[in-house]
Amino acid sequence: MSPTTPRVTAVDTYDIRFPTSRELDGSDAMNPDPDYSAAYVVLRTDAADGHEGHGFTFTIGRGNDVQVAAIHSLRHHVVGRPVDELCADPGSLNRDLIGDSQLRWLGPEKGVMHMAIGAVVNAVWDLAAKRAAKPLWRLLADAEPEWLVSQVDFRYIADALTPERALELLRSGRRGAAERTADLLARGYPGYTTSPGWLGYSDDKLGRLAREAVAEGFTQIKLKVGADLDDDIRRCRTARRVIGPDIRMAIDANQRWNVGEAIEWTRALAEFDPYWIEEPTSPDDVLGHAAVRRAVGPVKVATGEHVQNRIVFKQLLQAGAIDILQIDAARVGGVNENLAILLLAAEFGVPVCPHAGGVGLCELVQHLSMFDYVALSGTTEDRVIEYVDHLHDHFVDPVVMAGGHYTAPTAPGFSATMRAESIAEFTFPDGGFWVRDRAGQHEPHTNGAAA
Amino acid sequence: MSPTTPRVTAVDTYDIRFPTSRELDGSDAMNPDPDYSAAYVVLRTDAADGHEGHGFTFTIGRGNDVQVAAIHSLRHHVVGRPVDELCADPGSLNRDLIGDSQLRWLGPEKGVMHMAIGAVVNAVWDLAAKRAAKPLWRLLADAEPEWLVSQVDFRYIADALTPERALELLRSGRRGAAERTADLLARGYPGYTTSPGWLGYSDDKLGRLAREAVAEGFTQIKLKVGADLDDDIRRCRTARRVIGPDIRMAIDANQRWNVGEAIEWTRALAEFDPYWIEEPTSPDDVLGHAAVRRAVGPVKVATGEHVQNRIVFKQLLQAGAIDILQIDAARVGGVNENLAILLLAAEFGVPVCPHAGGVGLCELVQHLSMFDYVALSGTTEDRVIEYVDHLHDHFVDPVVMAGGHYTAPTAPGFSATMRAESIAEFTFPDGGFWVRDRAGQHEPHTNGAAA
Repeated sequence: MSPTTPRVTAVDTYDIRFPTSRELDGSDAMNPDPDYSAAYVVLRTDAADGHEGHGFTFTIGRGNDVQVAAIHSLRHHVVGRPVDELCADPGSLNRDLIGDSQLRWLGPEKGVMHMAIGAVVNAVWDLAAKRAAKPLWRLLADAEPEWLVSQVDFRYIADALTPERALELLRSGRRGAAERTADLLARGYPGYTTSPGWLGYSDDKLGRLAREAVAEGFTQIKLKVGADLDDDIRRCRTARRVIGPDIRMAIDANQRWNVGEAIEWTRALAEFDPYWIEEPTSPDDVLGHAAVRRAVGPVKVATGEHVQNRIVFKQLLQAGAIDILQIDAARVGGVNENLAILLLAAEFGVPVCPHAGGVGLCELVQHLSMFDYVALSGTTEDRVIEYVDHLHDHFVDPVVMAGGHYTAPTAPGFSATMRAESIAEFTFPDGGFWVRDRAGQHEPHTNGAAA
Repeated sequence: MSPTTPRVTAVDTYDIRFPTSRELDGSDAMNPDPDYSAAYVVLRTDAADGHEGHGFTFTIGRGNDVQVAAIHSLRHHVVGRPVDELCADPGSLNRDLIGDSQLRWLGPEKGVMHMAIGAVVNAVWDLAAKRAAKPLWRLLADAEPEWLVSQVDFRYIADALTPERALELLRSGRRGAAERTADLLARGYPGYTTSPGWLGYSDDKLGRLAREAVAEGFTQIKLKVGADLDDDIRRCRTARRVIGPDIRMAIDANQRWNVGEAIEWTRALAEFDPYWIEEPTSPDDVLGHAAVRRAVGPVKVATGEHVQNRIVFKQLLQAGAIDILQIDAARVGGVNENLAILLLAAEFGVPVCPHAGGVGLCELVQHLSMFDYVALSGTTEDRVIEYVDHLHDHFVDPVVMAGGHYTAPTAPGFSATMRAESIAEFTFPDGGFWVRDRAGQHEPHTNGAAA
């Protein structure tokens, strides 16, 4: 390797926090006052192209510093690595990070350390896509099936999905990819909106936002439930009256219930025809979800935003515990592990409806669903990406919604790059917003408008 | 409350690391070079008695700083809390820590944040036992069943164990407690030793240590396996020859295998009559463990040292996935969650054989098994606590083995207090050992002898 081989020169981290709790954006039965935050990482290189890789873990406030520390603890695996090799094979770094035996003890493959790995791995994919001058979904959809299989860690899932079977799925999945790419570019990928349904909103606001969602072209909305049954009945009735019988209405308990409670509460809301009940109980409870699913049909069971890794998703599928699999772009170990999860979903024939919202989760996860449509599952039927209308303006390449659909990104990368002004303003505790806030200069923070 | 009510005044944290990797102590198929470490916490109060509460998370080196940061992030829940209330109801703090919605996002109830909660909660129990002038096992065994039930969080486990059923188990469990206490004080609690079986040891060392273990009175040893089948066959043969047919020999793969590999490899070692196969695959894989168990009998299946919380243990029991449940004192959310897990094991009739070793895990977990014997399961049959002979000398009240048994501690507390000299010497990176090490003054570090 020549002495001028471009290498990663820095792994810079930022503790970025938005004061969303002041508006009750994002409030639900378990999370009454989130301050949407990002433990943000930038990979810098000495390559002449000047590209950076951006990634992050989404958190909801306190503890964002712990997440930053975890990302920082991974830097020795990345700094000094040749950029060409890294971008040609992100799976190699992924394996090194997951295989760091000392750090592995802190998981394994779950929680703070695993999300840190996801942030770094996603930053590499962002860098790889920028260098390839493609949006990530297209980089993945254009890739050879053999290479995609090489990016997947089959440890602990080989009893459900072998590399050979994954290759078959990817080979058959790419048939017709050109037509689907054209369709995607023309019409986008269907979304649904959670913006009306936060628990902290009044019934009037709920009704108004639900009406607007339908007018905008969304065919599904979602309501948070689980704090008080009478409230939930009233809110579901309000929403159903506004949206009519043909718009899907999902409900989301954010892990509030025991198994028995989940069954009773969901049945009590069944008259409003909820499409799915999301996170009825602990995301760790595979058997519990299976019991709920057996009891609440035809209401579907959905989970995934807090499912820690491919191993738990594998079991949810093996146990027949879910109707809808909800990937999250920044909870598991990054794109590589989400490839494994998309492949598992395809193998079991379960539709993927990603979790999004937060900070930048919509920006990231759209790429995974679009790859899945173009080159794996080949369909958007019964598939929708969550959409929440906040904090997008902080991103350089924000999602663009049109008629309830995610417009396919065309800019190179993973849409992960946050605006430099936003980073400067909302870095905690020394960014401009937080300094002024502590000085008593309170200012309204609305959806992205503060940046 | 009077203005002189004693309160917690500080939550001090320490990053303590022992250079164990230089001796290959603790080496196994997944952890070739651990530096046994503790993210250590001391609760200080302004009470006149001067007692402190000590707790820690065990880690194996890198990332111990991340764990310390996580413990630090919890301090606002503890500082200022009245000591009497805190010690009278550690469950109240436990609920507050687990229920911190912003920190919960980083788990929930798993990995770095959950282990941090465990460290703080265990420090409170240490403080409570010191103030009660009892070893923790005795504080628990003397407690009223109603109070013990109040210390358990039944969220997500009520489908397997209700508070009412837990109360029944504890009420019937305490019958005969006085006799069992006398027996425990006279004879101790049976242990087994992993000291002979580290993967980095030569066959000669393995044979010699196995022989010594039997001579010391141990009736079970454990060997690490999973790196190379031929090596494992040779090492199992050596050990079995040395210990004879009547000493139990457990084997431990430390999560090395896929489900299929676990079955094949365990069958290949069956001729050496292993008592249990431990951690055959991912600790997250409930269904995988169940499949292994169905396939490898009469070899028993054991797991738990990396099982993240009561919810996964519940499922391992519900699915009939394990023969042996291995609690760890410092992986889950502390004594309160381990009470839940001991109750689940009792409800399902599965014996508990704790994981120990590391730094201080033997010291902690003996209290839980001794409580279980005296006041819950009422038996030590088929129950053994892991014992590893290293790093005990760093503790003020180290475990004392006699004839292969853990001697019941009599000093007040949770045996968690590390010697001040050890903390000063091994705090990373500024303790005496590490400063001299960086200066090139290499010194041998053997089992606890450096302190």
